[in-house]
Amino acid sequence: MKKADIGLIGLAVMGENLALNMESKGFTVAVYNRSFPGEEGVVDRFVNGRGKGKNFIPAHSIEELVEAVKRPRVIMMMIKAGAPVDEMIEQLLPHMSPGDVIIDGGNSDFHDTERRVKEVEAKGLYFVGSGISGGEEGALHGPSVMPGGSPEAWPIVKDILQGIAAKLDDGTPCCQWIGTGGAGHFVKMVHNGIEYGDMQLISEAYSLLKNRKGLDDDEMAVVFEEWNKGELDSFLIEITKNILRFRDEDGKPLLDKILDVAGQKGTGKWSAIAAMDENDPLTLITEAVYARMLSALSSEREKASGLYPEPVELGENLYVEEIRQALYAAKLISYAQGFSLIRRASERYGWNLDFGTIAQIWRKGCIIRSVFLQKITDAYRKNPELQNLLFDDFFRTKIQVALPSWRKVVAEGALSGVALPAMSSALSYFDGLRTLNSAANLIQAQRDYFGAHTYERVDRDRGIFFHTNWTGEGGNTVSGTYTV
Amino acid sequence: MKKADIGLIGLAVMGENLALNMESKGFTVAVYNRSFPGEEGVVDRFVNGRGKGKNFIPAHSIEELVEAVKRPRVIMMMIKAGAPVDEMIEQLLPHMSPGDVIIDGGNSDFHDTERRVKEVEAKGLYFVGSGISGGEEGALHGPSVMPGGSPEAWPIVKDILQGIAAKLDDGTPCCQWIGTGGAGHFVKMVHNGIEYGDMQLISEAYSLLKNRKGLDDDEMAVVFEEWNKGELDSFLIEITKNILRFRDEDGKPLLDKILDVAGQKGTGKWSAIAAMDENDPLTLITEAVYARMLSALSSEREKASGLYPEPVELGENLYVEEIRQALYAAKLISYAQGFSLIRRASERYGWNLDFGTIAQIWRKGCIIRSVFLQKITDAYRKNPELQNLLFDDFFRTKIQVALPSWRKVVAEGALSGVALPAMSSALSYFDGLRTLNSAANLIQAQRDYFGAHTYERVDRDRGIFFHTNWTGEGGNTVSGTYTV
Repeated sequence: MKKADIGLIGLAVMGENLALNMESKGFTVAVYNRSFPGEEGVVDRFVNGRGKGKNFIPAHSIEELVEAVKRPRVIMMMIKAGAPVDEMIEQLLPHMSPGDVIIDGGNSDFHDTERRVKEVEAKGLYFVGSGISGGEEGALHGPSVMPGGSPEAWPIVKDILQGIAAKLDDGTPCCQWIGTGGAGHFVKMVHNGIEYGDMQLISEAYSLLKNRKGLDDDEMAVVFEEWNKGELDSFLIEITKNILRFRDEDGKPLLDKILDVAGQKGTGKWSAIAAMDENDPLTLITEAVYARMLSALSSEREKASGLYPEPVELGENLYVEEIRQALYAAKLISYAQGFSLIRRASERYGWNLDFGTIAQIWRKGCIIRSVFLQKITDAYRKNPELQNLLFDDFFRTKIQVALPSWRKVVAEGALSGVALPAMSSALSYFDGLRTLNSAANLIQAQRDYFGAHTYERVDRDRGIFFHTNWTGEGGNTVSGTYTV
Repeated sequence: MKKADIGLIGLAVMGENLALNMESKGFTVAVYNRSFPGEEGVVDRFVNGRGKGKNFIPAHSIEELVEAVKRPRVIMMMIKAGAPVDEMIEQLLPHMSPGDVIIDGGNSDFHDTERRVKEVEAKGLYFVGSGISGGEEGALHGPSVMPGGSPEAWPIVKDILQGIAAKLDDGTPCCQWIGTGGAGHFVKMVHNGIEYGDMQLISEAYSLLKNRKGLDDDEMAVVFEEWNKGELDSFLIEITKNILRFRDEDGKPLLDKILDVAGQKGTGKWSAIAAMDENDPLTLITEAVYARMLSALSSEREKASGLYPEPVELGENLYVEEIRQALYAAKLISYAQGFSLIRRASERYGWNLDFGTIAQIWRKGCIIRSVFLQKITDAYRKNPELQNLLFDDFFRTKIQVALPSWRKVVAEGALSGVALPAMSSALSYFDGLRTLNSAANLIQAQRDYFGAHTYERVDRDRGIFFHTNWTGEGGNTVSGTYTV
């Protein structure tokens, strides 16, 4: 009997579509699904349904699945993140052999992946934690794939993972080796965080077009269609246009009937928490995550809207192009922040990440795919050591052009009561970054005043810390100490 | 030989000052310090130094310390948070008896305290995790104390903890029982988060006074002195005035020589992470934490300041009173957010917290002490079920009065390049909260479009979720499903 190239566990939508994608690229796929009550027969229904007449090998137990795959075996899990992944690894290990590879293609926490790589390697096998983005459609037709973990596994899994991935126009697959440990899932996490940011920015632009410009859904669709032809060209702008044009059964825009309560599944929060861990000011994505939480507080919002009326004055006229510039500038900030977080994690965990390649992987297949990502790849190809994307010439030029519009839009939002948490936090970050003499000296003075936390001085070398007896009790002595 | 009322472990500054505070209130204190290399003799130096002639009993081992305290014994740890606390508990337990109490007075993570309460109670003893705020001065003269943990311990430790705490004018101690488990350390964590927010807001006001009004340090000291006479009356405003007046040895303002790189010790980050865990939009404190991180990126800031020049136009005139109103309004938001987080955690962990009492505990002794906190106590006394402080009449009136100034200040900051992350994120939150029909419908539409994440409708009951086949493949069917 012919052996399979890969075994796939988990036939929910993503797993099923990935299996079909693999098969369509010439790979034989053994498929297995855990038999939860009510889910018996999933495997058989699949091979007799969407998989009929194709190169699938049904497996009804872990043993069967592992046995069906040729060596070195590659088993990919597409199951719920968390404890189920650990349980499945435990079930798999006794049946597999040294040199085999386990892939986790779910949305796992990168800390878990860091740990699992070590645990599986300790048994002589290899482990790959791979971010996969693109939703159901991407899984079927070509997702963006971010594999990391045991480097020895890469030559073994490369053909399959690159085979199923989206391709750039020149054929480059949107799947390259990310790095060791949890690097793949970390990068996927930041991808999702950036996705939160992009969606929030688009919703803020939508809010301005609707509430400040008074455009209806059709008019806004024209705006987004136009925007999608230029430097904002991206999947999320494109679907926004489609959403604005979509009509409910009564012929009216469906969008206007959708409740403004946004859900989330956790990876946005993880990005914010990772930023806290890395001391990296990931302000825009964090505000986007908080904005979704705020949207979900519907009873509080209803109460507040009764207590606090809308501002009466609408302020100055805003031009559509000014709104576009604000969206674009804030988006540049968001990606600069996201890549800054990736860079810091790369240094901390020793992943040695290739930032230009990461941007390239996101060019197609994933939710944040856009033309703009190529500019990030270009920036890092030009200078792989780039500290912050805002120091790149392309970014600088674009920010400089957009800046007057961006400032005006944020100011008008503040005056007219249109909440712009992402656009305005991006501007605060930008102004904070480019301000040489900030007000943080006062914070250090306060900390030293009440907690003797010490401070550094502008007229001395860095690394010398001073404490002042501010209240004068015991004399105003100032002493400098080196702290290693 | 006379037995001690309490045993205290850890004679660093905070522990030493707390011991002196206890003794001054009539308690006999047994003191012990772990003998790290280079720290031998700390106990003897203390009892022969600042503790000379006072009711201290020196202990040179854990056994001696425990033996010196009367039953039921109360042993308080003032040591570094983290693993040292667990190690010390392990060392203490064999020498203590059922019914004895261990207090952790350090800045522990509330998750650790939750766990330790269970672990210590399982041995038949009681555990109290107590937040203590007020810095060195507070520890000596009367801190704000937030004890939580084993309820059975409260009658045992109450006299000592209330004895050393700051007192309100009517004699009420700034120490009341907070709740079970990690409640005390959670509340202390939020206190510290609010402290980050207050300091950031003051630094933003300072930045506006300095950069937009062109005031010098003496002139700003007059402004803060004036502000401290009104509704902003607080410790942090007061010390800001003192800092602005403080002169270096050359007679020039010391503040101007302090490097604008702000440090932090972690509890601000913890607040932001807790907010993520509770789905609570704690935007202002989070921005304050990020602002400190941004200030610390000094090499990036230097580079950015060279690439992006200051805006040339200064915009409209700002009045000092407008800046004060913006600071005050944003502060109201910050406290509303902080108490919202406390309320959510109280519900989740079943702490049944008394929000009015928490505000009262912070009225004196701690870093965020202010007149304003009484208004929060009043609001919760009037309505203990208050969902959000912004729904209280006092808050509403103050926000309404401040709103035009607040909007103008944020707008002017955006236009003139003065970074106001806290003031502006507070305004975004406020506008997001009071907007009945927000733009989050678009986010839900996008999520359903690319990920089939479903949405709710404005014309149907909550809890019914719809999915639309937006791309029209397979028909534009819309189906509703109840999700429990």
